Amino acid sequence: MVTREDVGEAAARIAGRVRATPVIEVEPGRTWFKLELLQHTGSFKARGAFNRLLAAAERDGLPSAGVVAASGGNAGLAVAYAAARLGVPALVYVPETAPEVKVRGLRAYGAEVVQVGTVYGEAYEAAVKRAADSGALFSHPYDQPEVCAGAGTLGAELLEQVPGVDTVLVSCGGGGLMAGVAAAVEGSARVVAVEPERAPTLHAALRAGRPVDVPVAGVAADSLGATRAGGIAFETASRTGTPSVLVGDGAIVEARRALWKEHRLAVEHGAAAALAALRSGAYRPADGERVAVVVCGANTDPGDLAGHVVSVGG
Amino acid sequence: MVTREDVGEAAARIAGRVRATPVIEVEPGRTWFKLELLQHTGSFKARGAFNRLLAAAERDGLPSAGVVAASGGNAGLAVAYAAARLGVPALVYVPETAPEVKVRGLRAYGAEVVQVGTVYGEAYEAAVKRAADSGALFSHPYDQPEVCAGAGTLGAELLEQVPGVDTVLVSCGGGGLMAGVAAAVEGSARVVAVEPERAPTLHAALRAGRPVDVPVAGVAADSLGATRAGGIAFETASRTGTPSVLVGDGAIVEARRALWKEHRLAVEHGAAAALAALRSGAYRPADGERVAVVVCGANTDPGDLAGHVVSVGG
Repeated sequence: MVTREDVGEAAARIAGRVRATPVIEVEPGRTWFKLELLQHTGSFKARGAFNRLLAAAERDGLPSAGVVAASGGNAGLAVAYAAARLGVPALVYVPETAPEVKVRGLRAYGAEVVQVGTVYGEAYEAAVKRAADSGALFSHPYDQPEVCAGAGTLGAELLEQVPGVDTVLVSCGGGGLMAGVAAAVEGSARVVAVEPERAPTLHAALRAGRPVDVPVAGVAADSLGATRAGGIAFETASRTGTPSVLVGDGAIVEARRALWKEHRLAVEHGAAAALAALRSGAYRPADGERVAVVVCGANTDPGDLAGHVVSVGG
Repeated sequence: MVTREDVGEAAARIAGRVRATPVIEVEPGRTWFKLELLQHTGSFKARGAFNRLLAAAERDGLPSAGVVAASGGNAGLAVAYAAARLGVPALVYVPETAPEVKVRGLRAYGAEVVQVGTVYGEAYEAAVKRAADSGALFSHPYDQPEVCAGAGTLGAELLEQVPGVDTVLVSCGGGGLMAGVAAAVEGSARVVAVEPERAPTLHAALRAGRPVDVPVAGVAADSLGATRAGGIAFETASRTGTPSVLVGDGAIVEARRALWKEHRLAVEHGAAAALAALRSGAYRPADGERVAVVVCGANTDPGDLAGHVVSVGG
């Protein structure tokens, strides 16, 4: 459960710790981009990580035993960064199969990295156990109220930045961002969750009436790779009537290239999914509808964008 | 000669044609980035190209014989883009040695590309002659009043976006951006021009008392590759007391990597020069000084940033 009030509290709590990211008007009066890729650590996850830690600190003080996460990606980086800023030890569990570049990245932000098992689930289980055994705070990547509320603070910013916005398109994996933003804009605008066809966690949950496991694959699986929607995501989507729209890998790749070519934004595939819904027609706004697209992360290898550079030089 | 009034007229003229680019506050109360890399065609040059064409149109109508430019880089792209938007033919001259990717980029924006000579100077001479022979409008990449005034409109925006800004750091090649911004903020803030040590055109001009040729090399030569400062740039820097600060290639490379690593901004080397002055200490703000850094272009091959990705994935 996450509410507009939770988001307001989160915004007050994390103010000054996170960046208020800019919005650009892309098509006058019709389309805006919320440039959340400019957030600390390159994704929206820093908002939730700070809110999780600072909310816990309000109750019990900062966790002297540290914070534990299980993620080789954006959530892990965000926890590592927030913990370092707050002077708290961070322990991040990843599978032994995690690429060296991810491990190095986590260490660069000051986290201790523990490699356990061969799949994410094993690292996750070990992280949960470690937190329970040590008294450290476990920071779930998406299915935790304060993590969702923290993510939602970008939605609260957006309402100020785009007065009268009707619709907010967000990429959706485990659903933490979707839940937070849907709560933040409840009563003012609606959220449309955009999911890869090959990772349709919320879509499957809404159809089944509860979160269910789905097979996950495709170009965006590195960031939208949760195998089922979070309980908070499912509850919030149901409560707010947030639909899930599906986009194919081709549309995601096209949108990512367009973001570079037309806006010089180098983003991860998952972050391009939201725009892909608009560009592919998977989501068609009504006449006069004001649509904001959240561009939520840029932890990508930009090398494959090189061929799409229009030109170089002065 | 370019004045604050010229910039005001330019802003009115090009409104709706160019993007008002966002500013982010990087260090609270101290440092801001003006994200001009998000401009159409990936650099500030679109502002001057539109102002040049639209100002000419006010006098004589849009040039039916088209517009001619000599540039394989940002200026050429901007002229091609502006001309296409205004329905005017664009003819862009580049040397026969221009990389195929640049020629393709210009064509992608609808320009006709003419390849003449082996060095830029030959293409430039041919372009000037063609414009004179055909009655087409010649659009100089930097040493033309309306091109400078157009570039300056980003400075006028900045004054609104960062109230009380003291200093604006701009990368400087031929000096069109510097001149426009110095005029735009005259009486309100000062500009510091940042030049590569290996392309010190304004530095040499201020020392010699007039624009002089300098040898040009280094990592930023593709965008800051003018061999001498423009007359307008020299006059405006002299009038406004705009100094030139030099940065080495190492500092430029470091700043470019930092822009990716810390802000997920993939920029060209020339655009990173302004920030390099701050990061390297070549420019040291006073206590309480409010500094805006113009991040002016992203026409880069982002491939070499891949090794500097902190991490990837979700």
